[in-house]
Amino acid sequence: MEATETAKLEATETARLEAFSDGVFAVAITLLALDLRAPVQKDVLNAHGLAGALAGEWPQYLAYALSFLSILIMWVNHHHLFIVIRRTDHFFLLLNGFLLMVITAIPFATNVLSVYLVGSEKQTAQVMFSGVYLLMAITFNAMWRYASAGKRLLGDRIDVRKVQDITRQFRFGPILYLAAFGLAFASAVASLALCVLLAVFYALPSSITRAMHD
Amino acid sequence: MEATETAKLEATETARLEAFSDGVFAVAITLLALDLRAPVQKDVLNAHGLAGALAGEWPQYLAYALSFLSILIMWVNHHHLFIVIRRTDHFFLLLNGFLLMVITAIPFATNVLSVYLVGSEKQTAQVMFSGVYLLMAITFNAMWRYASAGKRLLGDRIDVRKVQDITRQFRFGPILYLAAFGLAFASAVASLALCVLLAVFYALPSSITRAMHD
Amino acid sequence: MEATETAKLEATETARLEAFSDGVFAVAITLLALDLRAPVQKDVLNAHGLAGALAGEWPQYLAYALSFLSILIMWVNHHHLFIVIRRTDHFFLLLNGFLLMVITAIPFATNVLSVYLVGSEKQTAQVMFSGVYLLMAITFNAMWRYASAGKRLLGDRIDVRKVQDITRQFRFGPILYLAAFGLAFASAVASLALCVLLAVFYALPSSITRAMHD
Amino acid sequence: MEATETAKLEATETARLEAFSDGVFAVAITLLALDLRAPVQKDVLNAHGLAGALAGEWPQYLAYALSFLSILIMWVNHHHLFIVIRRTDHFFLLLNGFLLMVITAIPFATNVLSVYLVGSEKQTAQVMFSGVYLLMAITFNAMWRYASAGKRLLGDRIDVRKVQDITRQFRFGPILYLAAFGLAFASAVASLALCVLLAVFYALPSSITRAMHD
Repeated sequence: MEATETAKLEATETARLEAFSDGVFAVAITLLALDLRAPVQKDVLNAHGLAGALAGEWPQYLAYALSFLSILIMWVNHHHLFIVIRRTDHFFLLLNGFLLMVITAIPFATNVLSVYLVGSEKQTAQVMFSGVYLLMAITFNAMWRYASAGKRLLGDRIDVRKVQDITRQFRFGPILYLAAFGLAFASAVASLALCVLLAVFYALPSSITRAMHD
Repeated sequence: MEATETAKLEATETARLEAFSDGVFAVAITLLALDLRAPVQKDVLNAHGLAGALAGEWPQYLAYALSFLSILIMWVNHHHLFIVIRRTDHFFLLLNGFLLMVITAIPFATNVLSVYLVGSEKQTAQVMFSGVYLLMAITFNAMWRYASAGKRLLGDRIDVRKVQDITRQFRFGPILYLAAFGLAFASAVASLALCVLLAVFYALPSSITRAMHD
Repeated sequence: MEATETAKLEATETARLEAFSDGVFAVAITLLALDLRAPVQKDVLNAHGLAGALAGEWPQYLAYALSFLSILIMWVNHHHLFIVIRRTDHFFLLLNGFLLMVITAIPFATNVLSVYLVGSEKQTAQVMFSGVYLLMAITFNAMWRYASAGKRLLGDRIDVRKVQDITRQFRFGPILYLAAFGLAFASAVASLALCVLLAVFYALPSSITRAMHD
Repeated sequence: MEATETAKLEATETARLEAFSDGVFAVAITLLALDLRAPVQKDVLNAHGLAGALAGEWPQYLAYALSFLSILIMWVNHHHLFIVIRRTDHFFLLLNGFLLMVITAIPFATNVLSVYLVGSEKQTAQVMFSGVYLLMAITFNAMWRYASAGKRLLGDRIDVRKVQDITRQFRFGPILYLAAFGLAFASAVASLALCVLLAVFYALPSSITRAMHD
């Protein structure tokens, strides 16, 4: 196979991988909102009116906003990675597939958290919620390590310094989410606060993009 | 990094941003229809038959058509903006992400409106509904202002007059939706009528496109 | 604006229109399957077992298969049209948006039909079902007439004979679906049978594609 | 029609077919997770707590993971096929449409399996589940046979040996899923175990990709 044909073949493969992933990200992020429904419990409505009933759904809004922001950041990261990742292979497709599976599990974890955030079971809900996020951070890291090791799946003209920058940026994700996961066993509220902090922190422009736009 | 490579990199970034946004728009606009279900309330069916029960669901159809048209117009606008916006940066990705979050909240606001449009709680429902639309108009404006300020994210060969035209078109959106939001506190029906008028007005070909096709 | 830039601009506009439409088609066609659920009615399960309960859901399967095939054919047609349609304008975007709104209403009409296909209300359900299909055929025709009139939105190098072939193929759609709609007032079963026949007929390779591949 | 224009036309047709299919794959794979919901049955929660209630939903997780992996593998295969398939015709569009219909039926079959995996009706559920998978394998095979017969829809510069490799890889899919389907009548658990084995086997990098990357 000639070099140019190989290059085109690789471009096609990455393109469909990105398109498929974009589709899953887009559906998962939109499905989060499916849990937001008009309140219909007669007793709550009678006691507090619609405004009160809507306000009483704050755990849903918090969980929704947090999960939306988190999936959005994951998408931004995914998008950034595929600026430097230019090739794909079977194992990488599976890793990416596993990442997508974790992403599609986020609406579930968000649903559990929003139902149980207020009450005695909040700890179990937060253990599960932060566990899914930990899994996401680990999978993302594994993808990057696999793709960048020996420049296995990187483009030919990628700057070594950029690769090191991304590696440095990625180093702490799993550790920080492991901390949030561990903290959930001690305090659900503290663990959730850490998850919020991490989402806001990763949303700040100082993250990966800095290395990208040097 | 060479100029051509930068250009290609930017094209790729905008392409995935548009593809992801298209995905969210497409899912959100289709999910609106999930609320449309066969009526199954035995008492309504016995009293009015299926035709009567379907006709009795008119608030759902009105809210559905209004929200569909509004999301469609947002998509058309998004589409038009990205003819002139050619670059992206981290903050703009977040702004766009926030816009998508507001878009995905529209099915929720539509659901609340369609459930409470008839009855004593219509005012709260319309305050919320018009509030989401106000937020959408503000976010869209912020995106355009951020992208166009100093031609920050515009293509190099964009006509200054076109930018001014778009800016002029966008100026009144937030003010008009603020009026609809304020009106909701006085009269839900008047506020909803204004929302319908605005959607129809923005759907008219005289809007942004005129500037585009000069 | 130079000719090449205009051409590129038009290509971009059609590309996003197609991508967005593909998204809506894909979501709508997949959402059809959301109505297919494990039967959970205890009395049916006790009397007939799971196999009997699943078999008893045949109206759902019929409505699902018919709607899936119909949306698929619409997508194939849409796809074929955009081989010759190369430009877009504001009014055409709205027409296409209205088509998508009708497409997203199909899962609703399908749901109503599958719930009421067996029973005394089947006529109302079929009037609604065939009415949505009639609307779809009319909208599709309007799109083609608007785009092809004076070659308004067609590519520059399109063969006149091809345009005539498509126009001929499209001529009978609205009339045939009008017949199905009218028939629904006389016999729901006959009208539904005609809808099935039309879907199968349009799925046959003799349709538009023949003109395409001459 | 000139050769270059034909080539471009074909590229466009395959591109939209792939984009539409990607959309359906992405929505179907994400909808699988819609069944994963916070447990709300009071008696289960009182007896076992949230952790116990979540753990008790293991049939859902198993069915979810299995179906996710299976749809993912189908997507990878689809993706691989379209590296060599470069043209399309009306019949192939219909075959691909039928494949997508089977794919969208998987969340239904998964839902039935997860509800009835524990209990006396597991056999019926597994007959249905494996039946859908058998249908998927047959359809995929039919697509490949139709496309590759006489190189009907293959690119002009495709290596004959590669075509033979894919044909060899595809030969056993329908037979193995037929075995799983037949086994379901004898033992639901054995049939399900075979389905899991097949999914894991096809996920191994030794499959199609080996032939692809020779």
